[in-house]
Amino acid sequence: MEAIKWQGNSLLLLDQTRLPVTEYWLRYTDFRQVAGAIKTMVVRGAPAIGVSAAYAYVLAAREFSGLSDEDFFQKMTEAKATLSASRPTAVNLFWALDRMEACLAANGKSPAALEALEREAMAIHRQDVEMNLQMGRFGSAVVPEHAHILTHCNAGALATGGYGTALGVIRAAHQQGKVSMVYADETRPLLQGARLTAYELVQDGIPTTLIADNMAASLMGAGKIDMVVLGCDRMAANGDFANKIGTYSVAVNAHFHGVPFYTALPSSTIDLRLPDGSHIPIEERAGGELTHLAGVQTAPLGVRTYNPAFDVTPHELLTGIITEKGVVYPPFRENLQKLFG
Amino acid sequence: MEAIKWQGNSLLLLDQTRLPVTEYWLRYTDFRQVAGAIKTMVVRGAPAIGVSAAYAYVLAAREFSGLSDEDFFQKMTEAKATLSASRPTAVNLFWALDRMEACLAANGKSPAALEALEREAMAIHRQDVEMNLQMGRFGSAVVPEHAHILTHCNAGALATGGYGTALGVIRAAHQQGKVSMVYADETRPLLQGARLTAYELVQDGIPTTLIADNMAASLMGAGKIDMVVLGCDRMAANGDFANKIGTYSVAVNAHFHGVPFYTALPSSTIDLRLPDGSHIPIEERAGGELTHLAGVQTAPLGVRTYNPAFDVTPHELLTGIITEKGVVYPPFRENLQKLFG
Repeated sequence: MEAIKWQGNSLLLLDQTRLPVTEYWLRYTDFRQVAGAIKTMVVRGAPAIGVSAAYAYVLAAREFSGLSDEDFFQKMTEAKATLSASRPTAVNLFWALDRMEACLAANGKSPAALEALEREAMAIHRQDVEMNLQMGRFGSAVVPEHAHILTHCNAGALATGGYGTALGVIRAAHQQGKVSMVYADETRPLLQGARLTAYELVQDGIPTTLIADNMAASLMGAGKIDMVVLGCDRMAANGDFANKIGTYSVAVNAHFHGVPFYTALPSSTIDLRLPDGSHIPIEERAGGELTHLAGVQTAPLGVRTYNPAFDVTPHELLTGIITEKGVVYPPFRENLQKLFG
Repeated sequence: MEAIKWQGNSLLLLDQTRLPVTEYWLRYTDFRQVAGAIKTMVVRGAPAIGVSAAYAYVLAAREFSGLSDEDFFQKMTEAKATLSASRPTAVNLFWALDRMEACLAANGKSPAALEALEREAMAIHRQDVEMNLQMGRFGSAVVPEHAHILTHCNAGALATGGYGTALGVIRAAHQQGKVSMVYADETRPLLQGARLTAYELVQDGIPTTLIADNMAASLMGAGKIDMVVLGCDRMAANGDFANKIGTYSVAVNAHFHGVPFYTALPSSTIDLRLPDGSHIPIEERAGGELTHLAGVQTAPLGVRTYNPAFDVTPHELLTGIITEKGVVYPPFRENLQKLFG
């Protein structure tokens, strides 16, 4: 399963707002529209928006390639700003754009440079999949036999270049015959767990049970969850991490019940410039996501809403961090620095 | 605000499945249809289904009043069984029906007995409102000034004979000028928080912010919640209690963050025959509540679901129990026995 396809002259994105009912691919040739697709969550998931932004940068460079050198670089700076402004929390977006900008700076403006940019975007995409496969290898080793695993939101093939971070770990463990059941939090308000995670897992024949977010604690209380693994949108140097809203509640409940709690992420999600999680910007989205569903009004007019898209989980609640270089254990700041500093 | 009206020869129920968009009253003259209304949650909330079942018992007695004594009492036993089978968890249903049956046994079968039954149902209704007002008096005393209060599901006027248990406490505290903000969990899957609690509070002009269930923990982590108060569907002798699914997750998070956590309930919700919460039957509802919303498919076909309507919170996580006789503190078993034994 994949949600991002590069076709040489255009970017195809599987419209994730229409899943699981409709599999509808959208074609993009304008970087501004890719920025819109990120903002409206046609494509979502920290690694996937990084990959998409890299391809959008290629589209921008081609669009502006007829300009003078000065105008070209000015326009590329603006294009990067437009793409950067699409969503604030996931650091992969900025990481990918910085990498593309460095490639442009190294190659200048020429037909060969345009080719180098395309190769760089394709490398970001390919390397993301490779990192996920590595995470699957390392992460599946911590999954016990007959595991009942809880996950939150979607950190799967749809959220990445392919295979997935947390769902990559689950896929690898499933291949080893270790997975008895995956419990998928539906993940309000946009239901990425119900619409995307359940969709991926059912397609792969992995046993999956859909629950509302508020049911996870009672499953833990009944001893029915052996481990939690979920994704990450940005990790600070000390291991504090932002992920989809509700992750913190799962973490507190896992801690209370003694359930091992892991996040899986590629190094592109680690932001060592931030000393701790308090520095991660948290996107707040429109209240309509809470007051309406599929056009149906589900709350009274005039009610206030609070709709943060992410929350920050302190590293104290983490058992381990599954990365492409291995599983990182406490002390996280020292061990993250050793592997990725 | 009220959701139950007795009109002498029929029962009017405000259709809570259509709120907040449509205020639609349904008229019932057949006790079997009232049982259906409880099952499909036209009326819901532990005290409200107790009151509704009491009126339904009156409708049954009138329907069968032309029968011989033997047939009459046989049919009334069957009617009680039909009403009892509507929902399993809230004990108020069984409490109200036992009280109606005792009234029938005391008065026999006569025109005067039918009148006595009607008076008894009206007394159950009136006393429920009175108990809520008492809970408001006792409960508002534990609400701090400038309180930011979290509640889950709907334990309001709509869930009771009127005024509400947890929302009764909030209403009373609001009248005393103590309430800065109520955070209402939307309460998946049926959104009683979004559809009913937000509706009640907005109508009363009480400042209310709607959140998804999975956002409560991050508010607590940010120090933005001063107390939790919510309802109860059945409490065992030791203070363990069943309430809407998700209550346990709120309780664990409140405990972790040191936030005072109260449930408010009338004595009709206390089931002293059960030694602890493990004996409370938990209703599991259809998976369609998780896979579809307002007719829109939100999960892949073929996914398993787990959809318990309630969970059990152990008494260790409770700060206090707000009742019509006062606020009960630990040790709960001893103190509940003293007040209600």
